[in-house]
Amino acid sequence: MMKLGFFLAGTGHHIASWRDPGVAADSNASLRHLIATTQTAERALFDFVFIADSNSTFGPDDPKIWKRTAVTMRIEPLTLLGALAAVTSQIGLISTATTTYLDPFHVARMFATIDQMSGGRAGWNVVTSSSASEAYNFSHDKHAAHSDRYRRAAEFIQVAQGLWDTWEDDAFILDKANGLFFDTAKMHMLHHKGEHFSVRGPLMVPRSPQGQPVIVQAGQSDAGRELAARTAEVLFTVAQQIGPAREFYSDLKARVVKCGRSPDSLKIMPGVLTVVGRTREEAREKFDRLQTLIHPELGVDALSDIVGMDLTPFPLDGPMPEPPPTNSQQGRQKVVMDMARAENLTIRQVYMRVATARGHRVAVGTESDIADALEEWYRGGAADGFNIMPQVLPEGLNEFCDLVIPELQRRGLFRTKYEGSTLRENVGLPRPVNRFVARHAAE
Amino acid sequence: MMKLGFFLAGTGHHIASWRDPGVAADSNASLRHLIATTQTAERALFDFVFIADSNSTFGPDDPKIWKRTAVTMRIEPLTLLGALAAVTSQIGLISTATTTYLDPFHVARMFATIDQMSGGRAGWNVVTSSSASEAYNFSHDKHAAHSDRYRRAAEFIQVAQGLWDTWEDDAFILDKANGLFFDTAKMHMLHHKGEHFSVRGPLMVPRSPQGQPVIVQAGQSDAGRELAARTAEVLFTVAQQIGPAREFYSDLKARVVKCGRSPDSLKIMPGVLTVVGRTREEAREKFDRLQTLIHPELGVDALSDIVGMDLTPFPLDGPMPEPPPTNSQQGRQKVVMDMARAENLTIRQVYMRVATARGHRVAVGTESDIADALEEWYRGGAADGFNIMPQVLPEGLNEFCDLVIPELQRRGLFRTKYEGSTLRENVGLPRPVNRFVARHAAE
Repeated sequence: MMKLGFFLAGTGHHIASWRDPGVAADSNASLRHLIATTQTAERALFDFVFIADSNSTFGPDDPKIWKRTAVTMRIEPLTLLGALAAVTSQIGLISTATTTYLDPFHVARMFATIDQMSGGRAGWNVVTSSSASEAYNFSHDKHAAHSDRYRRAAEFIQVAQGLWDTWEDDAFILDKANGLFFDTAKMHMLHHKGEHFSVRGPLMVPRSPQGQPVIVQAGQSDAGRELAARTAEVLFTVAQQIGPAREFYSDLKARVVKCGRSPDSLKIMPGVLTVVGRTREEAREKFDRLQTLIHPELGVDALSDIVGMDLTPFPLDGPMPEPPPTNSQQGRQKVVMDMARAENLTIRQVYMRVATARGHRVAVGTESDIADALEEWYRGGAADGFNIMPQVLPEGLNEFCDLVIPELQRRGLFRTKYEGSTLRENVGLPRPVNRFVARHAAE
Repeated sequence: MMKLGFFLAGTGHHIASWRDPGVAADSNASLRHLIATTQTAERALFDFVFIADSNSTFGPDDPKIWKRTAVTMRIEPLTLLGALAAVTSQIGLISTATTTYLDPFHVARMFATIDQMSGGRAGWNVVTSSSASEAYNFSHDKHAAHSDRYRRAAEFIQVAQGLWDTWEDDAFILDKANGLFFDTAKMHMLHHKGEHFSVRGPLMVPRSPQGQPVIVQAGQSDAGRELAARTAEVLFTVAQQIGPAREFYSDLKARVVKCGRSPDSLKIMPGVLTVVGRTREEAREKFDRLQTLIHPELGVDALSDIVGMDLTPFPLDGPMPEPPPTNSQQGRQKVVMDMARAENLTIRQVYMRVATARGHRVAVGTESDIADALEEWYRGGAADGFNIMPQVLPEGLNEFCDLVIPELQRRGLFRTKYEGSTLRENVGLPRPVNRFVARHAAE
């Protein structure tokens, strides 16, 4: 079965969504709205809700103000996930946290808490912070180098997963008669000492019904692929064309196997911005109307961010200049530049394609068109599922749920009820055995 | 009117509460239970729910396992507060976060998000981490000195409050026609550069209906009092006797005035462990039954933690030894040692008094007895209100709400409906004017 994530962004995923007359422009900070859309996705049986994040309003290396975009309003995602845990009962809950500026004990504890409160539905999207401007909010004077960020990320994940195992599943015996709250033999100090961190443990959160939160990643650079092959369970990717998507899919699955893991233990899920209409004309019209709302200043800013180069000095209708190597989103820069070169596109043409959905694939059409677009990639070895990015919220999600989900179900591609109660059960991932139990069993 | 906080601890506040036959021993990690008790407190018109925290399971300087206490299970409080924000609409939401091991941008953003999601009901209990063992979970090789922790705390609060003002109240103009999401003149970079932090800003969270989260503190040492006088709006205190409580109250209010603030701008709220019965005998019986459930090992451990000295080598029924000066909870050590000396108590006698409620005052009796106990301190210049600590949950809270609250209302001491919709409106604290607006008005 195809896996589907609902990528939650308050106003929707089209870069000009907040200007749409049907959208409440302050949706990014409206709890009522964020709850309502997540509950809609749960009724439609989505595997999970996915929340992206950044700890800065601005683009890289430049404090210019993104006064034309709604991402300047961005509430903290872990506390939001807590709220969503209280008002949902089956959908998975995934949010982003950076390993570059946060602390592993704190992050491990927050995700373990979401996992505990939700009955085993948490996932952590591990990012290394692509925006240099985040550094300035965390008392760093510059952005750490790409390779340093990835080394720190690898150790950070190791610490978090270690902490999640500090209590065995049945450690808390709660023996009232003898006054023993837990069994000391089933509690394990971590005593991690590494290059970046030293962490004693234990965590104070019991192991959840799914054992550990699911590890999600999105990096596409070589370092990102290597880390994903070793540690990721869900991979959120950017791909415009089935060819490169298929190559990426094969490459990652091969790397996973090389790491001694089953290829099924990593689910690859490209993002897709969707615009659904009752007819193709209706869908196209909706899309075109939004496209006209992209202010050129914003289009150029957003594209500059994606390729890691300030494009404002260049003529809008001239060719794309060659960007320097980036310390930021390396995988995404390559996808965009390959496309620009192959089709000889102007700056305006490129931003109209990629600023729209921050480089993600765009699918515009009827439920049947959208289902075709997803089925082709799913059956064609390019994806295990998709992170669905409705162009505007709530309308775009409602239409996807009302029209596309039933079409996918008719084709036998999508579930008609949740398989289990945890995120791992629904996405089809194994429940990790506690490392201390495993070690003991091996002795 | 008297202010009342509901101090939420899963199983209740008596140190042996989890062993009570009527208590679910795993309540500390049960979202359903934590939501239900908070909603009970909201129906009873409590000002706020208050969540304590520590990032370590263990006592100071010693990794021995607190196998006999429920605090080994302690979920992360900010994500819990997120959950509570989604299922309540009027009660204030206060939780603890340490300035010693966390980061100011991240903490400011989490509380701003709780404040935004709850419509202006957030409060932050600022602590400097009294437990040395927290250091080992955050890659520090030792606990920072008391004075260093307080200096860092002062700067940390300054940064957080600065970030909370980076957007003026009406900065987000959401002008769809012109594609302007916010008014650049109403966004302010922070550009903080201090001893511990450099933070550019802005935060990405709009200013909440109450302007800024409420600052809560609990330190009672001299450094703690000074910080509170300058920055705290609610002060959660430990006091056993009305005399010292009154002295503390006067001292703090005088310090507040010396800092140029109104004495009403700081609410002093001692903790009180309550045991309510229909008769005095019933209440006393409940309390005594719980007292017998304190395992001596746990009693000595807890007392050692409070006075900052390992008491296990000393005879249980011998006198209290003199503890060395502590780098930990200085104020609390003094309260306990003053009492032990004044009454010439044995170690067992002291732990039976203070381990019970971690040093807090204990009130056992009928609704009238409890109301008398609160009224005496409130009218006697020793408190602006109380942080209520039911001995067991949910029963102890239910009884407080059913019996004591109506008695306080009959006496005209407690509200019969919420005064406003924000925490500040209910507790009676002013809404802070944005510093940039104030500066501009002054020019």
